[in-house]
Amino acid sequence: MVSLNTTCHESGQHMRALYFDRELKLMPVFPMPPKKTGEALIKVLLAGICGTDIEVLNGYRNFHGILGHEFVGIVQDANDQKLIGKRVASEINIGCGECSLCRRGIKEHCKKRKVLGIEGHDGCFADYVAVPEENLHVIPDDLGNEKAIFIEPLAAAFSIVNGTWIRPTDKVVVIGDGTIGILASQVIKITGADVCVIGKHKKKLSILEWMGIDTYAYLGLDDRGVHVKNNIGVEQLMPEHLFNVVVECSGSPRGIDMARALVIPRGTIVMKSTVKEGVSLDLTFAVIHEVHVAGSRCGPFEPAIRALRKGLVEVRPLITGRFSIEDWQSALQVIKRPESLKVVFEINQTT
Amino acid sequence: MVSLNTTCHESGQHMRALYFDRELKLMPVFPMPPKKTGEALIKVLLAGICGTDIEVLNGYRNFHGILGHEFVGIVQDANDQKLIGKRVASEINIGCGECSLCRRGIKEHCKKRKVLGIEGHDGCFADYVAVPEENLHVIPDDLGNEKAIFIEPLAAAFSIVNGTWIRPTDKVVVIGDGTIGILASQVIKITGADVCVIGKHKKKLSILEWMGIDTYAYLGLDDRGVHVKNNIGVEQLMPEHLFNVVVECSGSPRGIDMARALVIPRGTIVMKSTVKEGVSLDLTFAVIHEVHVAGSRCGPFEPAIRALRKGLVEVRPLITGRFSIEDWQSALQVIKRPESLKVVFEINQTT
Repeated sequence: MVSLNTTCHESGQHMRALYFDRELKLMPVFPMPPKKTGEALIKVLLAGICGTDIEVLNGYRNFHGILGHEFVGIVQDANDQKLIGKRVASEINIGCGECSLCRRGIKEHCKKRKVLGIEGHDGCFADYVAVPEENLHVIPDDLGNEKAIFIEPLAAAFSIVNGTWIRPTDKVVVIGDGTIGILASQVIKITGADVCVIGKHKKKLSILEWMGIDTYAYLGLDDRGVHVKNNIGVEQLMPEHLFNVVVECSGSPRGIDMARALVIPRGTIVMKSTVKEGVSLDLTFAVIHEVHVAGSRCGPFEPAIRALRKGLVEVRPLITGRFSIEDWQSALQVIKRPESLKVVFEINQTT
Repeated sequence: MVSLNTTCHESGQHMRALYFDRELKLMPVFPMPPKKTGEALIKVLLAGICGTDIEVLNGYRNFHGILGHEFVGIVQDANDQKLIGKRVASEINIGCGECSLCRRGIKEHCKKRKVLGIEGHDGCFADYVAVPEENLHVIPDDLGNEKAIFIEPLAAAFSIVNGTWIRPTDKVVVIGDGTIGILASQVIKITGADVCVIGKHKKKLSILEWMGIDTYAYLGLDDRGVHVKNNIGVEQLMPEHLFNVVVECSGSPRGIDMARALVIPRGTIVMKSTVKEGVSLDLTFAVIHEVHVAGSRCGPFEPAIRALRKGLVEVRPLITGRFSIEDWQSALQVIKRPESLKVVFEINQTT
């Protein structure tokens, strides 16, 4: 399935790139990324397709450029000589470096920020990508590429426990059984908390069960509460206001309604996925029930790297498909199937 | 101004009571509270009027009964003999004692809860009030009545720091200069954080300045941000996204808009006052800015008692007026003036 076309980029001038400008196209002879101050040039080995990529294809942030923001690559050129030849993953937010938010170390919230493959900066679905050296994290030798490709989404899952204190005595429910829901539930499991997932997809729920996480298949929501079926097929009503923490990973307004029904007074609702514009939460609910609502987006890379190295989180069952960049249309078809999880492009080989 | 009419309650059968049933009336000969299992009978010394009382008069929760929930009193009768003769303050939520929330110790969120003078249980604007013994906190001898009357609202202010970690390095803004805003800003001041208040009332802002808290007079909110005037009369625009924590104590939709403009990414908005039904927060904002929204209502009494005893919080300047219960109409007139803070009823004397 993989066919490596190395002719173009070996010339040092051109490369293959999946370019989006109202439509997605594979450009076989695309200019190499220009070398900007502070940026490293990286040869892309593996790149992961994320739900956000699909949203970009649907017009999110009016992006045009090379798509993609999850990758593992090898540094070809950098000011910091120690980086050259190293295998790296990259944070995706690129701050202006000058505003008060950048100076406080939160470039993720710089108002002028660029975001790899999402806003104002070419992404990684190409032979080469250029990113600021400060965004790079060297991948330890004992962490293989197929695990390392999960560093970025796993970092996003770690942002949950970085922002909200989850105690070992807490009951936690994750709403949604997609890649983020599965990574989130694993990160929460290692806190010692009692975590379960409510999802809609049989295959994804079985992966979770295999990981030792309790699952419930979603049946419906009404005035009585959330109706589910447990893993041995027994239909039941989830007790109302049971969970100290509800992690909303479905991105649907229905998910918010479920979160409201399931969270205990003084508990926390973590909003892990971007909901559609205009979805809102009644603040009277938050005050009366003294509930915390915690927005969560990007996360810290180092804990994700540690957890992958130490085998605290399982990611291999999450790879649904592998494709060459030439076979991008098949890759997109697969990622759009409801039962799919992570789909990766195998772009270059290490050597 | 105070005239004590002790004839009725000294008979042991009747008492004076400010009773609300679509309209408020002083009942000079009202039946004494019935003695229920687990309840103590308390002679009310001082009682404070709260903003919620005014909302009850406007129809909040369709309450009918004796109004009032902030008081200092002396236990006349109780099962626990050690309580008799003690000066006490009382938590206002009365749980069913049987549901899972009561069993977890959060009677404040019991679905069948009664609330003193607000829902299903007579309040304290009367010579006597009956409350569960478990709700009582004995007031130390070195804490006078005029400070002790602030235990309940100060506990509500402490719920802010009980629910949200405010660090000494944080910048915090309190929106609203009412009693809760002033108590909240003082509680936050003792964390070591850099706290200021945005308010509308000259007199209240001067009290805050006297307390050593920076103040800004609100001028307006537009696309550029929040326009204010500092304490030496200089007009300025509050820098956007400056504050780690914004405490919304104004209860107005405008307050929420200000909070959105002032909170730093990854910061926290504490909703301290109940907003009107239907006021909501766009969740996309919470996710994109990774902001936490923390609902906050009732709070812990013991930290409030400690802070008052140790002089960590100033409350004396907050008493705008003192009235006898017979003079309740004047009291209500005063509490409704924009420049008023706490108004108290002097109901009985200690001896």
